[in-house]
Amino acid sequence: MALPQLKNDRLIRALLRQPTDTTPVWIMRQAGRYLPEYRATRKQAGSFLDLCKNTELACEVTLQPLRRFALDAAILFSDILTIPDAMGLGLYFAEGEGPKFERPLRSAADISRLGAPDPAENLRYVTDAVSLVRRELDGKVPLIGFSGSPWTLSTYMVEGGSSKEYRYIKGMMYENPTALHQLLSTLAQAVTVYLNAQIEAGAQAVMIFDTWGGVLTPQTYRDFSLNYMQQIVAGLHRQHEGRKIPVTLFTKGGAQWLEDMADTGCDALGLDWTIDIDEARTRVGNRVALQGNLDPCVLYADPDSIREKAREIISRFGNHPGHVFNLGHGIHPAINPDHLGALIDAVHEFGFDIRK
Amino acid sequence: MALPQLKNDRLIRALLRQPTDTTPVWIMRQAGRYLPEYRATRKQAGSFLDLCKNTELACEVTLQPLRRFALDAAILFSDILTIPDAMGLGLYFAEGEGPKFERPLRSAADISRLGAPDPAENLRYVTDAVSLVRRELDGKVPLIGFSGSPWTLSTYMVEGGSSKEYRYIKGMMYENPTALHQLLSTLAQAVTVYLNAQIEAGAQAVMIFDTWGGVLTPQTYRDFSLNYMQQIVAGLHRQHEGRKIPVTLFTKGGAQWLEDMADTGCDALGLDWTIDIDEARTRVGNRVALQGNLDPCVLYADPDSIREKAREIISRFGNHPGHVFNLGHGIHPAINPDHLGALIDAVHEFGFDIRK
Repeated sequence: MALPQLKNDRLIRALLRQPTDTTPVWIMRQAGRYLPEYRATRKQAGSFLDLCKNTELACEVTLQPLRRFALDAAILFSDILTIPDAMGLGLYFAEGEGPKFERPLRSAADISRLGAPDPAENLRYVTDAVSLVRRELDGKVPLIGFSGSPWTLSTYMVEGGSSKEYRYIKGMMYENPTALHQLLSTLAQAVTVYLNAQIEAGAQAVMIFDTWGGVLTPQTYRDFSLNYMQQIVAGLHRQHEGRKIPVTLFTKGGAQWLEDMADTGCDALGLDWTIDIDEARTRVGNRVALQGNLDPCVLYADPDSIREKAREIISRFGNHPGHVFNLGHGIHPAINPDHLGALIDAVHEFGFDIRK
Repeated sequence: MALPQLKNDRLIRALLRQPTDTTPVWIMRQAGRYLPEYRATRKQAGSFLDLCKNTELACEVTLQPLRRFALDAAILFSDILTIPDAMGLGLYFAEGEGPKFERPLRSAADISRLGAPDPAENLRYVTDAVSLVRRELDGKVPLIGFSGSPWTLSTYMVEGGSSKEYRYIKGMMYENPTALHQLLSTLAQAVTVYLNAQIEAGAQAVMIFDTWGGVLTPQTYRDFSLNYMQQIVAGLHRQHEGRKIPVTLFTKGGAQWLEDMADTGCDALGLDWTIDIDEARTRVGNRVALQGNLDPCVLYADPDSIREKAREIISRFGNHPGHVFNLGHGIHPAINPDHLGALIDAVHEFGFDIRK
């Protein structure tokens, strides 16, 4: 069955640094807890993981923010930890505690026993959701697929959950780097296969979230995080349905390493809010598009202040192709959805203005 | 009573970019939970706050790491939240949950009711501890006094404790910056008086910890954090007992803003591990000394790996005056004290070598 043509292609064009009529915008975690309709569907599904694995309901929550806001993209509702879960580590979410693994990897022996997951087998629920969302979107806006970076996935797999100190994984990194490289290499292969399966199923852009790359030193960032993201970028099917599939890399806290990130061959970089977007643009030049970079906390302020901060970022980027507006990290659960509406309208308005 | 002369002045000399025989080293949180003798004294004192407020026991834990290791400085055992506590916010430590305030500041009215604490009155336990430690040290090594930065203190005061999202303080910053500036201004005055009282009581160097400056944007960092640290630097008594009192600023996650920090008139900058120290040195030139910057997680590895990483930092800094070795953040509670011993010996050994 042929997939419908794309009506709003601002996101894809901006990621490929082609001109657009205004600045496209989407929001990390736009399908999420700040929306009452999300909370209702989540309740219906059961646990967070039940919701991720339920094709119909995952599709439903993916589409919910598009019914409220003039967003320029959908992003698949899923979790970065689907891959380690499919590798048999036993993912679960303890209420109010974040993700946990029943069987964390603490030794070289644990790592050597690990196999790559087969997306056609135990990640089928993800590709099924991609296909269903594409059909339901009916070409309205593009669908973004995503994965966690090998480094970020490995932090959860070795620590057994979220971490503040990175005790076990960094202990391994500094004392037994070979074991960690083996894990990261397995993960790089798994992420490549996983993202290619999402592209095959209909994802029109992909993004790699390196949420914890910023806790590394410059050298260990290059060796243990960026190196494996580069391997993934090199292995992706960058053409599908007659279009280029743009790839975005996002390292939270990675503003110091933008030049190295731009050298991986990706199309775009996600920015958190700790760097001015005009400075980032000066540093990476025309090699990549930039996505970002409003502090998510601006959305706690009143709509007038929100508009002012949106205007500032658009004006800093200036009248060039290659800007996708976003927050510098996911939207917080306590945000008033009307505040997000004000932001999205402001981005489109100022995005038109700056192109005049 | 005249205070004893300083026998080991490596730290002071390095902070003032004067030549030393080897690289001086001290460790953030060197008096802390990784030491069994600290845990014993803490038990004897009662709560963490009881220990901070007990002059004799605070002195005892300050001196404990110096009995084990050839450290080049002592740092007063205390907490950055003594100032908000003295302002009447009701500091307490819930076991395993970090610091909390009974009466957080959530409005402009809360802030306008706030007065500056009088160090001679309700922070007397801190200056008493400084004087006692100085006497007990008997000139062996210098004593460092410290404070939290106004921005960092205000995050706890407004959020009511530690935060991941900075919802209330950033909401205030973006919607009602005037109220927040009033709070920061009060805190800048309080910190200045507090650090001057520590200097008067015998602190031979002072450090301002801006633990949460790195969660800001470049503009809000300058306006809401750096600006107030600069006011403090300008108001400190920089000469005491016939010596210059060096001032160190440390913003965790602030590697992007080192040039701005160096322009405040401080003597040294603390670095976390997300920047190479040679790059930092190139960027700030000879304006300031640098303190850092080993990833605290290196101490989880074996002593050979620890030595290798220490050597790398010393060799990156090179044979120049102005390096104080430290971790990029506080030592973790689970570290084996023998590993810290290996690090300190390695720093002195390689520090001698590089000066040959």
